[in-house]
Amino acid sequence: MGSLLNSVRSPKDLQQLTPEQLPQLCAEIREKIIQTVSTNGGHLASNLGVVELTVALHRVFHSPEDKIVWDVGHQAYTHKMLTGRLDRIGTIRTRGGLSGFPNRQESPHDPLTSGHSSTSISAALGIFKAKELKGDAGHVVAVIGDGALTGGLAYEGMNNAGRLHKNFIVILNDNKMSISRNVGSMARYLARIRTKPSYFRIKGNIENTLDHIPGVGRPFRHALTKSKSILKQLLYNSTIFEDMGFYYYGPFDGHDTEKLMEVFQNVKSIPHPVLIHVLTRKGKGYSYAEENPKAFHGVSCFNVETGKAVTAAGSFSSVFGSKLCSLASEDERICAITAAMQEGTGLSVFSQKYPERFFDTGIAEEHAVTFAGGLACGGMLPVFAVYSSFLQRGYDQLIHDVSLQRTKIVLAVDRAGIVGEDGETHQGIFDAAFLKTIPGITIYSPSYYDELQSSMRQALYDCDGLAAVRYPRGEQLFRPFDFHGSRKAYCLYGNESADIALITYGRLFSNACQALSLLKERGIEARIIKLNRIFPIDREAIREALKAKAVFFFEEGIAQGGIGEHFSFLLNQAAYQGRFYLRAINGFVPHETMMQALEQLGLSAGEMAELIVSECSD
Amino acid sequence: MGSLLNSVRSPKDLQQLTPEQLPQLCAEIREKIIQTVSTNGGHLASNLGVVELTVALHRVFHSPEDKIVWDVGHQAYTHKMLTGRLDRIGTIRTRGGLSGFPNRQESPHDPLTSGHSSTSISAALGIFKAKELKGDAGHVVAVIGDGALTGGLAYEGMNNAGRLHKNFIVILNDNKMSISRNVGSMARYLARIRTKPSYFRIKGNIENTLDHIPGVGRPFRHALTKSKSILKQLLYNSTIFEDMGFYYYGPFDGHDTEKLMEVFQNVKSIPHPVLIHVLTRKGKGYSYAEENPKAFHGVSCFNVETGKAVTAAGSFSSVFGSKLCSLASEDERICAITAAMQEGTGLSVFSQKYPERFFDTGIAEEHAVTFAGGLACGGMLPVFAVYSSFLQRGYDQLIHDVSLQRTKIVLAVDRAGIVGEDGETHQGIFDAAFLKTIPGITIYSPSYYDELQSSMRQALYDCDGLAAVRYPRGEQLFRPFDFHGSRKAYCLYGNESADIALITYGRLFSNACQALSLLKERGIEARIIKLNRIFPIDREAIREALKAKAVFFFEEGIAQGGIGEHFSFLLNQAAYQGRFYLRAINGFVPHETMMQALEQLGLSAGEMAELIVSECSD
Repeated sequence: MGSLLNSVRSPKDLQQLTPEQLPQLCAEIREKIIQTVSTNGGHLASNLGVVELTVALHRVFHSPEDKIVWDVGHQAYTHKMLTGRLDRIGTIRTRGGLSGFPNRQESPHDPLTSGHSSTSISAALGIFKAKELKGDAGHVVAVIGDGALTGGLAYEGMNNAGRLHKNFIVILNDNKMSISRNVGSMARYLARIRTKPSYFRIKGNIENTLDHIPGVGRPFRHALTKSKSILKQLLYNSTIFEDMGFYYYGPFDGHDTEKLMEVFQNVKSIPHPVLIHVLTRKGKGYSYAEENPKAFHGVSCFNVETGKAVTAAGSFSSVFGSKLCSLASEDERICAITAAMQEGTGLSVFSQKYPERFFDTGIAEEHAVTFAGGLACGGMLPVFAVYSSFLQRGYDQLIHDVSLQRTKIVLAVDRAGIVGEDGETHQGIFDAAFLKTIPGITIYSPSYYDELQSSMRQALYDCDGLAAVRYPRGEQLFRPFDFHGSRKAYCLYGNESADIALITYGRLFSNACQALSLLKERGIEARIIKLNRIFPIDREAIREALKAKAVFFFEEGIAQGGIGEHFSFLLNQAAYQGRFYLRAINGFVPHETMMQALEQLGLSAGEMAELIVSECSD
Repeated sequence: MGSLLNSVRSPKDLQQLTPEQLPQLCAEIREKIIQTVSTNGGHLASNLGVVELTVALHRVFHSPEDKIVWDVGHQAYTHKMLTGRLDRIGTIRTRGGLSGFPNRQESPHDPLTSGHSSTSISAALGIFKAKELKGDAGHVVAVIGDGALTGGLAYEGMNNAGRLHKNFIVILNDNKMSISRNVGSMARYLARIRTKPSYFRIKGNIENTLDHIPGVGRPFRHALTKSKSILKQLLYNSTIFEDMGFYYYGPFDGHDTEKLMEVFQNVKSIPHPVLIHVLTRKGKGYSYAEENPKAFHGVSCFNVETGKAVTAAGSFSSVFGSKLCSLASEDERICAITAAMQEGTGLSVFSQKYPERFFDTGIAEEHAVTFAGGLACGGMLPVFAVYSSFLQRGYDQLIHDVSLQRTKIVLAVDRAGIVGEDGETHQGIFDAAFLKTIPGITIYSPSYYDELQSSMRQALYDCDGLAAVRYPRGEQLFRPFDFHGSRKAYCLYGNESADIALITYGRLFSNACQALSLLKERGIEARIIKLNRIFPIDREAIREALKAKAVFFFEEGIAQGGIGEHFSFLLNQAAYQGRFYLRAINGFVPHETMMQALEQLGLSAGEMAELIVSECSD
């Protein structure tokens, strides 16, 4: 009953176990992962896939002197349990608890905070070079999935690391998937290696291989081993990873702890960059997850017995997906693009209905934007659906390959604002600020499903150039019965003669409405100016704000360069003489529930009302 | 005397020439390029390298139905001459004249506006897919350099394009260089192909190759052609490009027009993605440029006879380079990183003096930032020197791999502000706006060399976390004799009791000083608040501004989300009651001289003074 796992308080304790005990340890870890994720939500399939790999790593390498860098980081639960965080694993993804991702602030065993994809080789190379320059001992290991390998940053990392003449280890954790099935030439290439490993596993056993080719193999082998012939050269450069300067070993069974330990032990002493190709199964050991790993990639709480999730039905993502399908049925120019987030962004139905107009680029946001720009230059109407936090990757491409082309694409910016439990790497708090720097952009931020639908249409047909529609993770929040929505750039709610104006956009409108009620209870009348189009700001919205003696701007996004600052500027250009309060976000926001985060940030209804009461009762 | 070239008014005219005339045409084009660049400045070596390649392309493909996408675009002069723009080639890079890069607004023969690296495959794939969906005929050809191939976006493009089952052509223009000598595993790999092409040129002539292996070749060939043996598979996947799903042909002599035409003609009908590897020589046909291509990459005017540039000595870049050397001599933690811009950013001396602490990542800004983050996590003090416009590529990495790590790197942001003749793709007008959204950043914007030096020291030692020092292209401008500089976050200049305050930063301080004189002539007293640290803004600077009845903020950067908007917000939070005028940049800025651009933007001394006179004489 967890007795082995409980005995491991640090990686050193792992060395005390006998090899025979490791399978039981792995079983205990799996059980703990399933139990934890079913209660707290989190990444299940990816974590179940790397149990043996993580145990083997910590048996052979000596963290924290040796550095293990987890790409993306959604597979680090075992790593956390084995590095002194078992006691707190039940707090994962909750306020004040462990992060769901590696985190430098959390443990010396986490050399890097992560959450975004494809960074591990580059960061590990930096850590390696620092060690080398300082004369510090220890190995550096990057663990990267085949999904993350579709990101160009991983290639840039390999291109640079392949020049080393020192031991530098990359472990390719190949489970054939990003979140969905992996795409692209590299995925196809890995599949070839997987299905016919003997084609590629030449280096170690070239002679044996040749022996098995009837007739010509044996004499040919003879000639080959004696000369530096053309064919020998060919054979000795058999995989893409070797072409990129790595020694390649694999593929190996990623659930065979003993074999992995043997391999790791062997490569430790090789003074060269090494790529170890390991095959794992996402969801390994939990039948529901093995059968449907994409459903069990990132999950909310679920019932362990039935595999059924405890979640609600509707979401902005699914409303977006449906709407895009109906728009695409009327307009053949509409294309949908995702960067490995088909399910998450609600595009599954679209991908089945319009396969020829659906493009999954893999985890490659830069390419997705530039590709969309190309489609637009060719006369199509591309919609790139992407999480806010990952769109940061496409900033230059939005400027250079879209806006500058004077062509049009639409961004469907999902997970805009606070995302909750995934925490600081995943919060969508920068998009409004960075998008609005791009010349000619129009940005919509709907509060409700029907507004999302009308914004989509406006973004596609009512504005020239680049347009973005941003909407939050999950469901719509409270909607007052007497709010009917509007397709205008802004709308008003509350007492129209009130001196106090709350200005906000997106999901926060719900909180602002509830704040209005709280204020009314305390005898304070106020109104809301709700921005639907947050950039450019409508002049009439400014005029409405000018009527107020005090404006309170609430923003679920970064303050510096955000919409609130911009609104303040416009107000003052219009000679506004009243007071202006801005409450927005000033830094990274840690993992906790979305509601907790909004409360903490002073963006709950109660906190909004408190601010207004305290400022207006002076 | 240019007679052949003059007869080519469109690519169609090219078909009228006999094959025997092409060498003369190429010679005329070369002469025209040298003459044009020596007069207007521009990209010489890259353009001289692709004369034959471009002629061959336009003989075989039919622009504009066929689309030719030039990566980066600094090699499109021949393309421009052959597509109806010969008459205007003398206007290149000048106000109202041709752009130095392909430009969609300029010609239907330019399917894409470009300037940044590694975008061509992704954009061409989008254009291709649009053609396919619309049922349009025509080929799509991307021309990409080996330098651009170090960018991850190119890999992402290949990973996606490699899945096609249609004709899609990528031409790898391999000249062994980015601007400097190309770096990384891919460069080494290409060198291997170049030096021993027979190892790789298997597909077409596998049998011939085998015939030449004494003894075993012939019988082996026999067995091979009859079976689908392991070795056959090996031989048929011989290059990295084939692994990525492309058919590979090459390498070919990129200066052999006839051969190139034959190859292009052949591959047109292949229903598959094709990569044609072409070897060219940067600077071909102009001895000074052939001998020193990196000096002749991007140049100012020069003397054709002597190859001597008509340029001045000092620059912000070289001052930066010297200062970093001296700082590095005192502090062993300091590392320098460049993304293929060793010369441009002034790091050549550093690279020789401290080779172990110098890192050229290739054209890979994303990797450069994440790698720097890794170095910092490992305890080093990395300085990434990068052009403002290219730093846009690293926005997400700055947030995720640096700021979020709570670690420290310094950005040396060169070419910040207007760059002049390179035009809209290269203007450094976004950095202040996007950088200031990043939590915890400190940004300095020195006006003069001595301030750059002190800012460097402050960025390294006086602030925690991410810091940026941004400075313009070229030389420092006018400096008043009575201005002594300051290491404070801001400083004051002019009549301290004046009601009118000009606020600005960076190079514009020079113009503001001259505006002050112009105003004085017209009886208007004013003062300048010069910001040295532009983010976060110093409270004392706000207090100084509060004294003014009218504030004029001048900014050589994008208005939306810029420093001016932010300053206005802070002023108003401090209950400022005066007027606030912001003059900044509102969109892309075309190619013209830096001075012309500033004038056009209302940021010259004269325009500044005009604004103030007109607003203050009401």
